Amino acid sequence: MSDFEAVAARVADRVTPSAAERERLRAAVDALTARVHDAIADLPVDADVVQVGSTARGTWLADDRDIDLFVRFPATLDRADLERYGLAVGRAVLPDGHEEYAEHPYVTGESRGFDVDLVPCYDVADATAIQSAVDRTPFHDAYLQDRLDDALARDVRLFKAFLTGIGAYGSDLRTRGFSGYLSELLVLEYGGFEPLLRAAADWHPPVRFDPEGHGTGTFDDPLVVVDPTDPERNVAAVCSPANVARLQHYARDLLADPREDRFVASDPAPVDADAVRTHLDRRGTTPVAVVFETPDIVDDQLYPQLRKSLHGVADELDRRGFEPLRSATFAADRAVLLVELAVGELASVERHAGPPVHVREHAIGFYDAYADRDVYGPFLDGDRYVVEREREFTTPAGVLESDALFDVALGAHVETALDDGYDLLVGDEIAALADDFGVPLARYFEPTP
Amino acid sequence: MSDFEAVAARVADRVTPSAAERERLRAAVDALTARVHDAIADLPVDADVVQVGSTARGTWLADDRDIDLFVRFPATLDRADLERYGLAVGRAVLPDGHEEYAEHPYVTGESRGFDVDLVPCYDVADATAIQSAVDRTPFHDAYLQDRLDDALARDVRLFKAFLTGIGAYGSDLRTRGFSGYLSELLVLEYGGFEPLLRAAADWHPPVRFDPEGHGTGTFDDPLVVVDPTDPERNVAAVCSPANVARLQHYARDLLADPREDRFVASDPAPVDADAVRTHLDRRGTTPVAVVFETPDIVDDQLYPQLRKSLHGVADELDRRGFEPLRSATFAADRAVLLVELAVGELASVERHAGPPVHVREHAIGFYDAYADRDVYGPFLDGDRYVVEREREFTTPAGVLESDALFDVALGAHVETALDDGYDLLVGDEIAALADDFGVPLARYFEPTP
Repeated sequence: MSDFEAVAARVADRVTPSAAERERLRAAVDALTARVHDAIADLPVDADVVQVGSTARGTWLADDRDIDLFVRFPATLDRADLERYGLAVGRAVLPDGHEEYAEHPYVTGESRGFDVDLVPCYDVADATAIQSAVDRTPFHDAYLQDRLDDALARDVRLFKAFLTGIGAYGSDLRTRGFSGYLSELLVLEYGGFEPLLRAAADWHPPVRFDPEGHGTGTFDDPLVVVDPTDPERNVAAVCSPANVARLQHYARDLLADPREDRFVASDPAPVDADAVRTHLDRRGTTPVAVVFETPDIVDDQLYPQLRKSLHGVADELDRRGFEPLRSATFAADRAVLLVELAVGELASVERHAGPPVHVREHAIGFYDAYADRDVYGPFLDGDRYVVEREREFTTPAGVLESDALFDVALGAHVETALDDGYDLLVGDEIAALADDFGVPLARYFEPTP
Repeated sequence: MSDFEAVAARVADRVTPSAAERERLRAAVDALTARVHDAIADLPVDADVVQVGSTARGTWLADDRDIDLFVRFPATLDRADLERYGLAVGRAVLPDGHEEYAEHPYVTGESRGFDVDLVPCYDVADATAIQSAVDRTPFHDAYLQDRLDDALARDVRLFKAFLTGIGAYGSDLRTRGFSGYLSELLVLEYGGFEPLLRAAADWHPPVRFDPEGHGTGTFDDPLVVVDPTDPERNVAAVCSPANVARLQHYARDLLADPREDRFVASDPAPVDADAVRTHLDRRGTTPVAVVFETPDIVDDQLYPQLRKSLHGVADELDRRGFEPLRSATFAADRAVLLVELAVGELASVERHAGPPVHVREHAIGFYDAYADRDVYGPFLDGDRYVVEREREFTTPAGVLESDALFDVALGAHVETALDDGYDLLVGDEIAALADDFGVPLARYFEPTP
């Protein structure tokens, strides 16, 4: 047995649910299904219930306690009724649960130690006829259940554990990594975990797979896996270029040096305020952080808005000459837009070039506009008029404490939150962030692939 | 009479040599010519003498005291003999003169209050057959003398006085402006000073003239005047884009507001050290000045070398992120390369992007090269490895006090001078330059077109 196989075998032992766990799960699903049927019986429409997701497909990781039950309503039901009936079933089955909202509302709660999602969907003829995104899931399950044997299910678990270990597992919009379904399709494509890693180590994105050979769309993504149940959908659409590169990097790393700790997610030790100051001192940068109340929205809304806002702020500071070196956004009760700048101060004047002198009307207009103003010039640089005029902002903090902050492209809820007030931390002041963000700051100041 | 004509008439009165001055000049030229003939008689070859330049063409400005006499030798004479005989004549005619060197050596001295240049040249059949640049001059004179009447000669004087007033007169490599010959051709082209100004105000460079319609070359200059005596030569080749724009700017200015002071060169009042400090405080810039012994070479060598060196230094500071705002070079006993920067200090680390992760061999090479070094990273930015490594220079002074100064494109004699040692002035230290360079610093800090 190779080193790789030995490591894989030990990890598989760890992440494969035990017979007892499988039995507990089966019993919980059976009991929930019976209660769903009872609840459906009280509705004026017919419906059925189907277990979906990795616990349905037998590819879940040990100690992953998620049960997903979809209640399928007739495709002719109008949406308002679907939502109403769906919630009625959810509240009946999970009386201690609460509502959440994805594409439509659903109920989530606990039962026998499992986390249960009870989601209404439409019962459509095939995945291309879906009326909402969740309607697709039963088709995914059916496709995979037909194709994944026990050996492949084991390798799916290895791949998921590996993706978890490298921080690339999950298609939520915070992670922008590999979904469970995508992971399973890739293992299926290559016939196992190790051949998948060997191939990924050599990928030249864009990489395209089309298991059913029916793809019709073109996609601008580094990784394209045409959904076997929907020729127009890229299963990997949410996967960021960095996460594709991350898989490639760690695939090479694991093949070169197989070891179990790569299959375990681990946070770095948090940095404290002193460590932040030490890093800043060594880096000689000017960090600025906009800190505000985190908008009360789900993560899949929050993180795209934070990233959009961060890019808006960094681009504006770049445009104004402060040369962002790196940036990051964190969120807990408060949210942070952190930009670290290579330039902390600029001259009080800036160059402003006018038209070439020979463009007579424009040139005279420019000259006359500046001739009596408090600027240096107009003078000639080559064939153009130039003035040196007062620069609007000579420090990055100047930009961020002014209304210029609201001229950048901000996420809508972030803009509202900033309108309600924000703190601006500059230089060593960002050390105070270590209290709430010691781990993300450790990732920032001790970055790895 | 228009305002313009009234101003022109008063200026013409001032710059037209008086009858007495003309007579003094004629007498001086006659006496010098006779002495040249005597000196030629002592040579083993035949030669003649011809007066050239604006005093020969009747277009000189009052109180311009230059007499140019060319001694024409047979075209078959070899160059060493031409130089030897030329100097022999020069020393005989101007025993108190001294040698200078243009394309070949010549003697310059004083006679009856005039500055006399005695220059040897070849007597060639036409200007395309010249053996050295000066051989062309007699043909220029012949061409213009046939075409300039008294009215045009008056307008030539006005144009030269105007160019002098705006600092654009002279084809030396310090000024890079309009030569006397070029000025005369332009007045001839437009039939007078005012029509020339009206046209220049509307020029859209590149502007091309070819008085004899015989031009064969193409030129990459904003102003092209094909030499009537040489179809391959642009008389305006040395004229910088800024001086063409300057003529356009002040042509519009004079036409809009005719006044005599535009025809008089004037230096601004020199600034003192306090004024320099006040400007720097207002500008909030980081100025750096490299100060060194001025190389002992003629201005036509010195200024191109100073400009080349200045561009080399400014480009290097730009490449390293310090954002030059403006730069200038001055020379007296000591020479100065002054660059004013918008960025005075940069972060201690700099971003260094590696290859995309999918370029496997290069990517692994990059990763391995930095994995154990004292850098931040490698980490992923999109699909690339990136590290943040120590920046070589965090201040502009750091660059200029290091060997990096000698890696930039410097003029040869400037490089030698810097090798012998230089002072580096930073920030307010440049106020000390006001002692020797008060006037050029006034031009720098109170810039006009």
